Amino acid sequence: MEIIATAKEMQRRSEQLRLEGKKIAFVPTMGYLHKGHLTLMHEGKKRGDVLIVSIFVNPTQFGPGEDYERYPRDMKRDLALLKGVGVDICFTPPSQDMYPDGFQTCVEVEQVTKNLCGTSRPGHFRGVTTVVAKLFNIVKPHLAIFGEKDYQQLIAIKQMARDLNMDIEVIGIPTIRESDGLAMSSRNTYLTAKERKEALSLYRSLLKGKELFLQGQRSAAKILTEITGIIKEQKSATIDYVKICDVHTLEDIEEIKGEAIIALAVKIGKTRLLDNIILKEE
Amino acid sequence: MEIIATAKEMQRRSEQLRLEGKKIAFVPTMGYLHKGHLTLMHEGKKRGDVLIVSIFVNPTQFGPGEDYERYPRDMKRDLALLKGVGVDICFTPPSQDMYPDGFQTCVEVEQVTKNLCGTSRPGHFRGVTTVVAKLFNIVKPHLAIFGEKDYQQLIAIKQMARDLNMDIEVIGIPTIRESDGLAMSSRNTYLTAKERKEALSLYRSLLKGKELFLQGQRSAAKILTEITGIIKEQKSATIDYVKICDVHTLEDIEEIKGEAIIALAVKIGKTRLLDNIILKEE
Repeated sequence: MEIIATAKEMQRRSEQLRLEGKKIAFVPTMGYLHKGHLTLMHEGKKRGDVLIVSIFVNPTQFGPGEDYERYPRDMKRDLALLKGVGVDICFTPPSQDMYPDGFQTCVEVEQVTKNLCGTSRPGHFRGVTTVVAKLFNIVKPHLAIFGEKDYQQLIAIKQMARDLNMDIEVIGIPTIRESDGLAMSSRNTYLTAKERKEALSLYRSLLKGKELFLQGQRSAAKILTEITGIIKEQKSATIDYVKICDVHTLEDIEEIKGEAIIALAVKIGKTRLLDNIILKEE
Repeated sequence: MEIIATAKEMQRRSEQLRLEGKKIAFVPTMGYLHKGHLTLMHEGKKRGDVLIVSIFVNPTQFGPGEDYERYPRDMKRDLALLKGVGVDICFTPPSQDMYPDGFQTCVEVEQVTKNLCGTSRPGHFRGVTTVVAKLFNIVKPHLAIFGEKDYQQLIAIKQMARDLNMDIEVIGIPTIRESDGLAMSSRNTYLTAKERKEALSLYRSLLKGKELFLQGQRSAAKILTEITGIIKEQKSATIDYVKICDVHTLEDIEEIKGEAIIALAVKIGKTRLLDNIILKEE
């Protein structure tokens, strides 16, 4: 596996690969890899000739007081995992290479980033779309793969790619879960044993919401009451939001017609966790 | 000359050219071509294997009440000029192809766009950098050429390309002038004969400013007083701004050290004209 640490070198390498006619698959990550990431990489291996993975904890998508400094990092373990999957190139730029002095440009997707995490984390999605635009220009992939656990992020990146005519297929992959249902996330490592148990209420509540939907319930308010009820039983849980939204615009829905998504962000102790489930008639 | 009218087709064509190893030179324009544009194209012919020119009057860089609707257009004449220069591909997308329903993304360069036209035309540079980012992703050039008459635009695009790691060389070409000194601009066509004469005061005042600088004057205020004095003698002139700025940051300078730029925007009648001159010890 090649390890490349500067944007310039990565860009040259990718340009060379494209000239050789290679199809580049790309999985951007913030490292501290789990099975969710590895599933994205397996998909990338299948779809591309060359698989490039970036590991970069992007400072600009963390707000003041958020967990940028303590975000878990373990480069040695990550590199071993990447080799195991058969990743071809790992791109790990230092922050100064991505944001040199005088940096002053942002990419902003305006509407789909307003609701949900956009409300609780102002500036977060601007940080995400800006760094992903940069990574796309550096890695020059034909396709890029993201997890559906961060559903709003996926939608924002798809929208950015479409609006800015990026010639890149943006692919979402269903959330990978622990055997007990907890959505995989690098931040799960923050949870104490007790919190870890209470965190199961998130997926359990989403399944309950889906069950109600499949039984014919179409009132978002009624489904949300059930979900918040389940989560509020947990001592360590503080709900940031639980919402039912349009799957494309991410605007709130009152009466569900066709498809919808239940998306939630809940703090378990000090750890903010995301999860979601799609509602779709079967 | 090929004429391509959709982003999808242009992108496919450019990808094919890149795979063939062709070096793509790109000159984006809003049409109504003059000798300034043609000079950019000659430069493009020299530097690239394939020269692509876009003609697109970009609605999002015009503010409310500005001249988007009446901006001069003459596609037939433009296409003849492009053929004359030996342009390989003309890309002329309709507005609906560039901004389909649901479009919601912008690229913003934050600091170098604050002063000068950024103050008088809020949103203008966001419109410019967004459309140029789109055009770059569609046309996939190795190099792109812009005129120095729109100096702040050139700086903003260079900054965007650097900040977002676009693998594109952004090249500025000195302003081309009429034989009497008026900077070439599609908007010159708006001027009446009388206004056309008074418009000469712009370049004359810049030359006076440069003369003072070369004689040793380093006080921006003193140079600006002379310049505004010359322009204010013209009955039809209304100064938007005349400023002396750092050539990189475009921040105002009080005492000139090393290089600087005198940049001005002046309304002659209803026509807003730009011009600038670099101050540099010879």
